[in-house]
Amino acid sequence: MNAPQKTYKYYWEDFPVGKVSEFGNMTVSAEEIIDFAGKFDPQPFHLSEEGGKNSLFGGLCASGWHTCAMAMRMMCDGYILESASLGSPGLENIRWLKPVRPGDTLHVRSVVLEARPMDSKPHVGLLRVRTEVLNQNNEEVMQMEGYGMYRRRNPGAPKE
Amino acid sequence: MNAPQKTYKYYWEDFPVGKVSEFGNMTVSAEEIIDFAGKFDPQPFHLSEEGGKNSLFGGLCASGWHTCAMAMRMMCDGYILESASLGSPGLENIRWLKPVRPGDTLHVRSVVLEARPMDSKPHVGLLRVRTEVLNQNNEEVMQMEGYGMYRRRNPGAPKE
Repeated sequence: MNAPQKTYKYYWEDFPVGKVSEFGNMTVSAEEIIDFAGKFDPQPFHLSEEGGKNSLFGGLCASGWHTCAMAMRMMCDGYILESASLGSPGLENIRWLKPVRPGDTLHVRSVVLEARPMDSKPHVGLLRVRTEVLNQNNEEVMQMEGYGMYRRRNPGAPKE
Repeated sequence: MNAPQKTYKYYWEDFPVGKVSEFGNMTVSAEEIIDFAGKFDPQPFHLSEEGGKNSLFGGLCASGWHTCAMAMRMMCDGYILESASLGSPGLENIRWLKPVRPGDTLHVRSVVLEARPMDSKPHVGLLRVRTEVLNQNNEEVMQMEGYGMYRRRNPGAPKE
């Protein structure tokens, strides 16, 4: 006998095209910027204020990958952890638009661009979502478009 | 008087279209996978072997963002830190092709897809590079195409 399947708050059907969500509130410190960069992206402008002053960035700024990782954490807390998420095959068009500085507080605005059932897997739907990361001045610091697979609440229901 | 400009091993001219480079050797542990996920991507399949067994992945696997970050570290050690790099405006087409498991040892194969001087900045050239991340069995676990800006050794030299 199979164990009963876990139920979730959000399924594929809960993310219709055009849906806009805003969430997240994550402040990044100089220590966190330097810690991430020391492990994964040890370029001078991510490791010290002085290294940043000698670069085009004009001061210490977070690795773009650190900003991506922070966006992922806000997306997890914002909806993914309460969703019947099946992971992501990839994403498109990451743009790092402005430096993220120590003390910046980031939030996310996401828009569902595309939602379609997967023909090969009747219980799964695909979403394409644009994720914008903004700072405390509402300046966009990063943008990306990602694909996500989600379980359907009503597998095999006709396309609308 | 300006300070003398630092010199680097690699400039934009050192990355011609078609150049293939292989580098990196990075083993990831279960502890590192769980530590990264706990901070940035706390989905069950990135947090424990048991959470992974109950997912499509069949066991604990690294966050895709962790794989990106490891790729960045190998790219830094492989060439970026010895290059006149000016950062990256973004990238395209990240594909997570296979799960990265505890104990996997990753390396990178990169190919220069495009190299052009920036018309707006005569001392800067743009590169588009495809970066493939492979595991110890030479299976491709991730692929991405990124843009990078590099200082030119010979600013304003005629296009070839």
